[in-house]
Amino acid sequence: MGPLPRTLELFYDVLSPYSWLGFEVLCRYQNIWNIRLQLRPSLIAGIMKDSGNKPPALLPRKAQYLRGDIKLLRQQFQVPIQFPGDFLSVILEKGSLSAMRFLTALSLEHPEMLEKVSRELWMRVWSRDEDITEPQSILAAAEKAGMTAEQARGILEKISTPKVKNQLRETTEAACKYGAFGLPITVAHVDGQAHMLFGSDRMELLAYLLGEKWMGPVPPAMNARL
Amino acid sequence: MGPLPRTLELFYDVLSPYSWLGFEVLCRYQNIWNIRLQLRPSLIAGIMKDSGNKPPALLPRKAQYLRGDIKLLRQQFQVPIQFPGDFLSVILEKGSLSAMRFLTALSLEHPEMLEKVSRELWMRVWSRDEDITEPQSILAAAEKAGMTAEQARGILEKISTPKVKNQLRETTEAACKYGAFGLPITVAHVDGQAHMLFGSDRMELLAYLLGEKWMGPVPPAMNARL
Repeated sequence: MGPLPRTLELFYDVLSPYSWLGFEVLCRYQNIWNIRLQLRPSLIAGIMKDSGNKPPALLPRKAQYLRGDIKLLRQQFQVPIQFPGDFLSVILEKGSLSAMRFLTALSLEHPEMLEKVSRELWMRVWSRDEDITEPQSILAAAEKAGMTAEQARGILEKISTPKVKNQLRETTEAACKYGAFGLPITVAHVDGQAHMLFGSDRMELLAYLLGEKWMGPVPPAMNARL
Repeated sequence: MGPLPRTLELFYDVLSPYSWLGFEVLCRYQNIWNIRLQLRPSLIAGIMKDSGNKPPALLPRKAQYLRGDIKLLRQQFQVPIQFPGDFLSVILEKGSLSAMRFLTALSLEHPEMLEKVSRELWMRVWSRDEDITEPQSILAAAEKAGMTAEQARGILEKISTPKVKNQLRETTEAACKYGAFGLPITVAHVDGQAHMLFGSDRMELLAYLLGEKWMGPVPPAMNARL
């Protein structure tokens, strides 16, 4: 028997484009590295508020840079990410509360569907510029991910229960306790220590901490599958 | 004859720890990739002012993260970087104006010394917690880098000339025109296009843009030399 897999927690929000990049990289490596990946749906608005941080896109020069950065990373990471037309309204006005509550309910009831539904929500908001706030938008993503209409409606009915609301609040607070001031964060549990890494650009450092091999954002096993 | 080397401009300030990491990575790869590296000493205070950005360390939770991040990157990048004791005073009060003027004068008169003197200034402020604002501090770094005392004093005498002051202002403005809101930035000139990459964590993306191979922050040729 080999060594036990190390646990990685990925705290993310589907409103965050860099969360998507981090998510895809870790989903690719979960079958390559000796890790156990825990997906932790969180609310980025709560983390910004608690830390006092501001979305980078509020500074015009950062907003301009983000557009170019995302365009280049789309190619390098092979993730079909694309800026929504009215980016500030998506981020600041529409938000992701219902979507993240849906993913939270899913993590409690059908954790095996969490990866696929998260990806379909990102595909809506961060690839096809589609809504993720209306119930029918969330149901469409869930069905596209392979849930039955009945299953999806069952989960949707639970998103306003205290259990789900509390769970999302607790997960968001856990991210803050690890020191988050934005998302994604990856918490790597290695030799009894928890290392918090911010962003999608610390994955090579993560490999270094784990003693695993970094093969870029699109590892060869993944290339073979494309 | 192979293809012409692509020009990379690295805009940096020795007050910026991530500039040091980016600098060392590019200095290592300049003999591996088909590139021509141009070191462009700039003033980070001017870039923050012009862009309206604030140093990340002003947000307590970011400051806390930076300390841990730098500690891990020190190992991964094999750069002896270490936080100064009174970090905020170093960054906000002492600054780097004389040091960056010295490097600017050097770029005009002895460009072949720019790499080594820059490194020695970082070794002072970002490794050994030593001053870089006093004339004797700058002279000590220059001499440690291999300049004679006479040469170093000759350069120091020129740091308040209009030529040097204007050159530093122009370089800083050039960084702003490329969209900088902090340092380092790397501007890669590829196929008639200028790509601006912010930070020390876009080096793998840089390799992708150049069509060169990324071998981590410590490429094997470098390992062999250690």
